[in-house]
Amino acid sequence: MIGIGAGDPEHITMQAVTALRQVDVFFVLDKGEVKQDLVDLRQEILRRYAPDGGYRVVYGRDPDRDRTTEAYVEAVDDWRRRRADVCQQMITAELADGQTGAFLVWGDPTLYDSTLAILDDIASRGFELDIEVIPGISSVSALVARHRVPLNQVGKPVQITTGRRLSVHWPSDVDDVVVMLDARTAFTGHVGEDADIYWGAYIGTPDEILISGKLSEVAGEIVAKRTEARQRKGWIMDTYLLRRSAPPAPDGAH
Amino acid sequence: MIGIGAGDPEHITMQAVTALRQVDVFFVLDKGEVKQDLVDLRQEILRRYAPDGGYRVVYGRDPDRDRTTEAYVEAVDDWRRRRADVCQQMITAELADGQTGAFLVWGDPTLYDSTLAILDDIASRGFELDIEVIPGISSVSALVARHRVPLNQVGKPVQITTGRRLSVHWPSDVDDVVVMLDARTAFTGHVGEDADIYWGAYIGTPDEILISGKLSEVAGEIVAKRTEARQRKGWIMDTYLLRRSAPPAPDGAH
Ligand SMILES: C[S@@+](CC[C@H](N)C(=O)[O-])C[C@H]1O[C@@H](n2cnc3c(N)ncnc32)[C@H](O)[C@@H]1O
Ligand SMILES: C[S@@+](CC[C@H](N)C(=O)[O-])C[C@H]1O[C@@H](n2cnc3c(N)ncnc32)[C@H](O)[C@@H]1O
Repeated sequence: MIGIGAGDPEHITMQAVTALRQVDVFFVLDKGEVKQDLVDLRQEILRRYAPDGGYRVVYGRDPDRDRTTEAYVEAVDDWRRRRADVCQQMITAELADGQTGAFLVWGDPTLYDSTLAILDDIASRGFELDIEVIPGISSVSALVARHRVPLNQVGKPVQITTGRRLSVHWPSDVDDVVVMLDARTAFTGHVGEDADIYWGAYIGTPDEILISGKLSEVAGEIVAKRTEARQRKGWIMDTYLLRRSAPPAPDGAH
Repeated sequence: MIGIGAGDPEHITMQAVTALRQVDVFFVLDKGEVKQDLVDLRQEILRRYAPDGGYRVVYGRDPDRDRTTEAYVEAVDDWRRRRADVCQQMITAELADGQTGAFLVWGDPTLYDSTLAILDDIASRGFELDIEVIPGISSVSALVARHRVPLNQVGKPVQITTGRRLSVHWPSDVDDVVVMLDARTAFTGHVGEDADIYWGAYIGTPDEILISGKLSEVAGEIVAKRTEARQRKGWIMDTYLLRRSAPPAPDGAH
């Protein structure tokens, strides 16, 4: 599993470059046309950093996730199993004993990505796999670097969470929250907080959009830009940091 | 500010390599003999990735932090101001107008690192600086990659915090906690939790130590290995992920 960074081909590490030059077969789970840009980045990375070829690229059809159910964990578990089936078939069919396969994983492979769980799932079926994980620049690191702000306030914690969770409530005891996988602009439910937002879409790519400011003042602009960009491109990937300046409730007060 | 990764020179990104080849002066805040290894990694990176030279390296004496006070934020603020004084002097003395200076920052420059705050502090004094932040592989990404575990559980949040905070209590409403800056082995205060620990010291370096398992079963071994390694090398850098498997108290129950 090779982390390729969150959009900019130059996010790739030397460790990843060294690794991808040793790969026999690259496996790609193709989500269909919509996110062609994501497939393109992987091709661009191979073209730039493994120019001598000597590898094959094998595409598998990424099964669809059931997005209608509220049973999020179960839906993801089921999806993972079906993806594991597809991957195991690809590995069995395409990789000879002793050969090296690789998945080029968006951002950091350990952050909100199911590839590792898929490979662990396959390994748990008795299929012998020697797994190595090569870290990558996450969209979280890319976001705050582009905004030139620290991820944490001095000596304070930071929480990384999902739009789904933020839409329920602001996490307890933490003033700095990074939100990923937010299809519902959950920040709009917190405009009453005295917080700043650092928002970014398509970070690291030519389409990058960055907006920051007081949450109450820029929330509307973000929603508008987000809707417009999503319509234009057909998909969006955005992440944001919410930073609350007011002191939290004292420990133990809740 | 160039992130150089958390110990392995191969953590460096192509973006960082491109950037460091454009630098006129590298600034190093030298902490004295103890952490010579940290200075060595920076020299190794310049030797490998900017082999043509054409730059200067300037060392400044890193002022000591007041570690006796319990007023953590104030002590860090005061330290930052004194470091800003040192940096401003270095920049004024060594950098001509239009030249490019760089700090090679350990791990990811936005995570528990004061360099950005120092540069913002200098900029706020009316000193004109054009700051760029180049993300790096954090010790958090390196830790979980080496242990081959995801940073988050499916759809769940993860909190990054300090040993100081964990020693007060396990953060609310979150089962996955990454702990940094822990000089007090704060995990020993939570052996009653049904949790796994993924611990790593000197990650990415030849001295790397990794231990994982049920917290209650391996806590003692970690403390022993940590003490031994710290004595042998004179310093230690360690980070860990605590992963609680039991469901948390239902929302609103606290
Ligand atoms: C399935 S997760 C994968 C995260 C990835 N492993 C990482 O380290 O960034 C996808 C989410 O990551 C975030 N994301 C990934 N790349 C992004 C980018 N270039 N710009 C903004 N957000 C991004 C978005 O929140 C998106 O919903
Ligand atoms: C001042 S913070 C800097 C963190 C850095 N900016 C990063 O992204 O990893 C120092 C803390 O980072 C963690 N750390 C940094 N490098 C590490 C390594 N190679 N192995 C284990 N922990 C590390 C330790 O928790 C240490 O106390």
